Amino acid sequence: MAPNAPDTYRTVISVDPFVSADQQKGLHNRWHPDIPTFAKVVPGEVFKVECVDWTGGQIKNDDNSDDMKNVDLTKIHNLSGPIEVEGTEPGDCLVVDILDVQPFDQMRWGYTGIFELENGGGLFAREFNSKACKAIWDFEGIYASSRHIPGVRFAGISHPGLIGTAPSPELLATWNKREGELIAANANSIPAVAFPPEPKGAYVGAKDSLSGDVFEKIAKEGARTIPGREHGGNCDIKNLSKGSRCYFPVFVKGAKLSVGDLHFSQGDGEMTFCGAIEMAGIITFKTSIIKGGVEKFALKQPIFLPSPIDPLYSAKLVFEGISVDLHGDGKQYDMDTTVAYKQAALNAIAYLMKIGYTREQCYLLLSAAPVESHVGAVVDSPNACVTLALPLGIFEHDILPKPEGLEKKDFGQCAIRSDGVV
Amino acid sequence: MAPNAPDTYRTVISVDPFVSADQQKGLHNRWHPDIPTFAKVVPGEVFKVECVDWTGGQIKNDDNSDDMKNVDLTKIHNLSGPIEVEGTEPGDCLVVDILDVQPFDQMRWGYTGIFELENGGGLFAREFNSKACKAIWDFEGIYASSRHIPGVRFAGISHPGLIGTAPSPELLATWNKREGELIAANANSIPAVAFPPEPKGAYVGAKDSLSGDVFEKIAKEGARTIPGREHGGNCDIKNLSKGSRCYFPVFVKGAKLSVGDLHFSQGDGEMTFCGAIEMAGIITFKTSIIKGGVEKFALKQPIFLPSPIDPLYSAKLVFEGISVDLHGDGKQYDMDTTVAYKQAALNAIAYLMKIGYTREQCYLLLSAAPVESHVGAVVDSPNACVTLALPLGIFEHDILPKPEGLEKKDFGQCAIRSDGVV
Amino acid sequence: MAPNAPDTYRTVISVDPFVSADQQKGLHNRWHPDIPTFAKVVPGEVFKVECVDWTGGQIKNDDNSDDMKNVDLTKIHNLSGPIEVEGTEPGDCLVVDILDVQPFDQMRWGYTGIFELENGGGLFAREFNSKACKAIWDFEGIYASSRHIPGVRFAGISHPGLIGTAPSPELLATWNKREGELIAANANSIPAVAFPPEPKGAYVGAKDSLSGDVFEKIAKEGARTIPGREHGGNCDIKNLSKGSRCYFPVFVKGAKLSVGDLHFSQGDGEMTFCGAIEMAGIITFKTSIIKGGVEKFALKQPIFLPSPIDPLYSAKLVFEGISVDLHGDGKQYDMDTTVAYKQAALNAIAYLMKIGYTREQCYLLLSAAPVESHVGAVVDSPNACVTLALPLGIFEHDILPKPEGLEKKDFGQCAIRSDGVV
Amino acid sequence: MAPNAPDTYRTVISVDPFVSADQQKGLHNRWHPDIPTFAKVVPGEVFKVECVDWTGGQIKNDDNSDDMKNVDLTKIHNLSGPIEVEGTEPGDCLVVDILDVQPFDQMRWGYTGIFELENGGGLFAREFNSKACKAIWDFEGIYASSRHIPGVRFAGISHPGLIGTAPSPELLATWNKREGELIAANANSIPAVAFPPEPKGAYVGAKDSLSGDVFEKIAKEGARTIPGREHGGNCDIKNLSKGSRCYFPVFVKGAKLSVGDLHFSQGDGEMTFCGAIEMAGIITFKTSIIKGGVEKFALKQPIFLPSPIDPLYSAKLVFEGISVDLHGDGKQYDMDTTVAYKQAALNAIAYLMKIGYTREQCYLLLSAAPVESHVGAVVDSPNACVTLALPLGIFEHDILPKPEGLEKKDFGQCAIRSDGVV
Repeated sequence: MAPNAPDTYRTVISVDPFVSADQQKGLHNRWHPDIPTFAKVVPGEVFKVECVDWTGGQIKNDDNSDDMKNVDLTKIHNLSGPIEVEGTEPGDCLVVDILDVQPFDQMRWGYTGIFELENGGGLFAREFNSKACKAIWDFEGIYASSRHIPGVRFAGISHPGLIGTAPSPELLATWNKREGELIAANANSIPAVAFPPEPKGAYVGAKDSLSGDVFEKIAKEGARTIPGREHGGNCDIKNLSKGSRCYFPVFVKGAKLSVGDLHFSQGDGEMTFCGAIEMAGIITFKTSIIKGGVEKFALKQPIFLPSPIDPLYSAKLVFEGISVDLHGDGKQYDMDTTVAYKQAALNAIAYLMKIGYTREQCYLLLSAAPVESHVGAVVDSPNACVTLALPLGIFEHDILPKPEGLEKKDFGQCAIRSDGVV
Repeated sequence: MAPNAPDTYRTVISVDPFVSADQQKGLHNRWHPDIPTFAKVVPGEVFKVECVDWTGGQIKNDDNSDDMKNVDLTKIHNLSGPIEVEGTEPGDCLVVDILDVQPFDQMRWGYTGIFELENGGGLFAREFNSKACKAIWDFEGIYASSRHIPGVRFAGISHPGLIGTAPSPELLATWNKREGELIAANANSIPAVAFPPEPKGAYVGAKDSLSGDVFEKIAKEGARTIPGREHGGNCDIKNLSKGSRCYFPVFVKGAKLSVGDLHFSQGDGEMTFCGAIEMAGIITFKTSIIKGGVEKFALKQPIFLPSPIDPLYSAKLVFEGISVDLHGDGKQYDMDTTVAYKQAALNAIAYLMKIGYTREQCYLLLSAAPVESHVGAVVDSPNACVTLALPLGIFEHDILPKPEGLEKKDFGQCAIRSDGVV
Repeated sequence: MAPNAPDTYRTVISVDPFVSADQQKGLHNRWHPDIPTFAKVVPGEVFKVECVDWTGGQIKNDDNSDDMKNVDLTKIHNLSGPIEVEGTEPGDCLVVDILDVQPFDQMRWGYTGIFELENGGGLFAREFNSKACKAIWDFEGIYASSRHIPGVRFAGISHPGLIGTAPSPELLATWNKREGELIAANANSIPAVAFPPEPKGAYVGAKDSLSGDVFEKIAKEGARTIPGREHGGNCDIKNLSKGSRCYFPVFVKGAKLSVGDLHFSQGDGEMTFCGAIEMAGIITFKTSIIKGGVEKFALKQPIFLPSPIDPLYSAKLVFEGISVDLHGDGKQYDMDTTVAYKQAALNAIAYLMKIGYTREQCYLLLSAAPVESHVGAVVDSPNACVTLALPLGIFEHDILPKPEGLEKKDFGQCAIRSDGVV
Repeated sequence: MAPNAPDTYRTVISVDPFVSADQQKGLHNRWHPDIPTFAKVVPGEVFKVECVDWTGGQIKNDDNSDDMKNVDLTKIHNLSGPIEVEGTEPGDCLVVDILDVQPFDQMRWGYTGIFELENGGGLFAREFNSKACKAIWDFEGIYASSRHIPGVRFAGISHPGLIGTAPSPELLATWNKREGELIAANANSIPAVAFPPEPKGAYVGAKDSLSGDVFEKIAKEGARTIPGREHGGNCDIKNLSKGSRCYFPVFVKGAKLSVGDLHFSQGDGEMTFCGAIEMAGIITFKTSIIKGGVEKFALKQPIFLPSPIDPLYSAKLVFEGISVDLHGDGKQYDMDTTVAYKQAALNAIAYLMKIGYTREQCYLLLSAAPVESHVGAVVDSPNACVTLALPLGIFEHDILPKPEGLEKKDFGQCAIRSDGVV
């Protein structure tokens, strides 16, 4: 018989969600093999990790979006870690059970934002010439609702937007090279197509204990945290939620797991970029190691077993999109699934606006609610087809198509800039 | 009280699935407003429509893939219709209940195929330098299994791959223009990026009754049936399955609904192009009309309510993909969801090959089984993230990652060319 | 590689659903080991069995319930069979895949009935002093709806109400003894508590080929088909639906499988007794044998794996019931789950009557729709607790509790007796 | 726009789960209208209530079951409350959103127990001549597992076993009368059929503030908390879980809501009586009032809308039971659903014992895991039919029937008495 489990579990990283991230230990905001281990765990141990929100406390629970307008994106994705798992070596598979994801008791709210075209962008930044907007979500147990988007309430599929192992020096070099080439080929793109290493804003909580120029090396070479990559990273997969078991490839000794960007909920696609219900909170883990797992499972990226407890909203209204810009200039694209996703989303926005939501409310809602987007077909040249399914059970009112048309209500507006520009 | 319903329902289009499509009435294989109505129905009537398989009988229940190699793609997508719904006018919304989709009693099988790179292609035609392959699926009630891909069995999510209303002359002209421009810009692409109107192989069952040069006009202008478009068409959405209610925009008087390309099952993405379990069969419909529905619901494309009876395989193994060609030259793409989908699929194929399936078996299986592919995130520049979820319940054996690795079995091979080239 | 499957499957028993059961071969309406095998199959073979409805054609598609009033219950449960599975012996486990259950194409309707207190009864026969009522259901593909209960439509969980292997002589004797004792102890109960062997109405299709007094023996000893027993029988389990795999204990050589009483749909409990949507139809099977399976799996009764395709109506309104007769004399029962189930049902009926359905419509609807009834707790003395969950998605209108109360509509009445007595 | 929500929510009742219940305020263990309000809330307010476990701290996280053997059942069901909801009057419907149910951070474990035949009993107390047994469950995020029942892990459907409004004096008198009559008619039953008011062990946290003989009146008349009744109470419905909305009838001014007996998980039926995973914890509520709701919704008992987030274990193995004692003397019962439930459970226990679990481990597991038990049919005289479905996904190993039989493993034993008697 196993020994008694303890009454409670160890918290290996603690943070204060109301304090700026760059004043707290156990955080970092770049990917680099030289970021020193902050905490160690043994396989089989259940432990907790506290996380600040992805902006590190820049966004407030108020009713204008000036904080969104002015967000400093060089400081984002403050991750808790790295956490060393004893006995892990390159080539192993690190099995991570995401046992729970909860907001802090003292911070029962989160936010979804639209960034400005010139500062952060988002999927429709250009199409909408985006100005900063915001919705604050109140957490009432398993549910979220927002005074900025009335008429909806839904259960969260809470998950880490960002979780991954540390890259090896070789892998880091590969990232910087390939992304650098893309940036070079799209030099003047707004929003930018990708983000190179940037010393400004780089943060490692253990900075002061680093010898010599290690911090400078990290700041200069460290990969930005925005995209997902081979190690996991910012994949923003809503179904990698509490209850999932994830299999990560390991690239450095100890695996050096980091996590952050917790989401109370998110729709497939995370449309606005700051599109999930972003929150600070606590994630509970348990790990194990499969020796040589990278080869055993042909892992080029993480794989995972989803949770048995995602919300069950079986009734849905589904929108289709194809790779033709039907909401713009009518241009035909060649099997472009991103365009098809955007068209499905624009179709959904157009429908919800008939019900009375503003365009910005729709954009925020589709980003944050448990919307399902499937790749329909990507072989019927030239049109990729994507679907986007709106769960009907999240609405207080019946939004189904009716012979008499849709009833238009007044849902006000989301939080906008204090200068009133939308 | 309503009058008694009849004991049975009217079949408005009948076909013989063993006879070549171009010898049967009630079929057509181009989209054109001038294709004459073949059958009329009234709103509220339940009726049946019989359909040949999408190749019109070119594929056989045997154990080599020479029929796949030699398929004539100018003759594909033989649709049953057009069916006029009385009282429907342009701007209306045609509500179509897909009440059932069943194979013929006398043809309890279907097929999934891989086409040659030069004749039809498919998602990985170039990567795999595809040679023709085939899997025959036996239908045992609600289940399909294949002697060419042993070890799996799954319930079908049966649906029409292709269903739509007729385009107006203006809409047809728009299609031909935009697709023509894409073709012009990619003139030598193999496989082709799109398919222009092509008189060769054009078929209208009512051809002999057409006056003057109407048939020639249809053949010369008629849109090919390969892509989905604003009217629906070949969307290949697996969840538009029996039990769904679909809302179509109407472009011509009577709506002129056509349907075909029935699928016993399909995975999200329909990877191989001939990727569903293609079948001949019978679809049961009921319609109603919402006057002015295009404006009421802001319909640029169909929307739908999915069926309550899709199979429930809750346990899944999920693969991730990002827009970097990790299985090829390592190139970084800019938020390309199609690349991300392909990477997720290649990760799944690599995993299944560890279990013993051949690459071609994997490719066929992922196309045909109820695989779920979600758009994870399309905002984390430069990487789109797509997931592909394999339902564990379709496998006879446990395929989960194990500390000791995966057990490799011998599953033989799918049907290949009689000359043995794979 | 396995040989090609045939294009279609063998029908081993054929019936005409419009002809009286007692004029057709391949049917029987008692359980007895001496009923001769009608058809033989081999393990692994897919085959079809046609079935009459459980009354053998006594109920008509019309708008009064006189046929219900006059139903002859000595003639019920006309089963198709027995079917011998080659190689099966007592003590084996017969694995039966229920691959599909479909109505006849020429009979796209079924019925739900309330019997008279004195002729058949039902759960609330005494409480309601039941008079004959009926609802005819039209099958529109996967859906059923009724002109006698407007405002609802639901997908069927089609299943055999009755399926089982033949009893051995010893098992049959056990049944007759134990049920005889119960009958003796409740001699004057109305409705009767159980039904002893009854030569009147006994039917075996192969009667004329039986030698000597075999038929008389069967008629005299044969167990009635009303209850479920160790061999399966009339269990009326709605989730033993198409797609299920069932493991039956075998009591005689060849197993002698019989099946009938097909249901298009049923609610948990099958309240009215003729409470499912009763239909004639076609069931598709495949079998295999596990030698010595009774011992291997400790089988005292069948066990089964449910289908992956039951309808998904996730939103529900749940009623509770405890073992106190709150709708009657207030009597306290001792942990009586049947009373608790009845109270939950009466609570649901009272609620639905607020919406405008008549008591008889409610009673029929709860019997026929995919209502879920769970045993909550059976240990909190003295009250058992049962829940009954009404799927909200089957109603055309929103029936949720509202601050302003429930809107009462006029849904007419179900089919009643031609003399107007309800 | 609504005012900002607070960062956190008010806890209206606080307890220490490690301190004996009878030393804490805000608790009571009888139902009586005169128990004074402990906390007041307003409709719309989100608030938290802390609860001790149902025994009030009598059970320990250790490896023998002596605490189970010696449990004092006069002290059980220590409820947190009563909570007055401002503005509520008799005849109203109190709408209670169960927003969350969580264990305490400092007590990440719970227990399931078997009581002795003579002290508490349980469903099979007589059949098994029960001796005290126990399983301690460790909570790892959303999952529970037990060192006393190895090989299983499952997500919790956390819920209050006991929640209800206070009875009016008239309702209380009705309870005492009807239960008294049952007790009188079964005077010497072991275990007892019901429990009359009992001053011994009666507890009201506010006792010292009560004037005159109010406490004595409560202790003398107060209904025991064991059964569910018209006001809710100890219904032990596993699906009344976090995320549910419940509609309670109100009998006294202010409604006086009380809650306790939190369960991390429970199977349908709660077999052993101490059968859920019993825990101390925190429940989060929000309320609203529907004036006159009792009449509007015909409420004789609570109704509820279940949560969208119950665990999804779609693959199941289902056992059947009928109202014949096949595991005992073979007696035939008359449509007794409790007997049928017990038979289904005994069939499941017999199956699991083939896999290697002891009888007591099976009994505990079926009580605590998310087992589904449906009422199959209660009209097929004389046999009620009940199903009990075991979710396959909770087992680490494949437990499906196999041609070669079931592999028997060694799972040890649950916690038993220190004298070794089982």
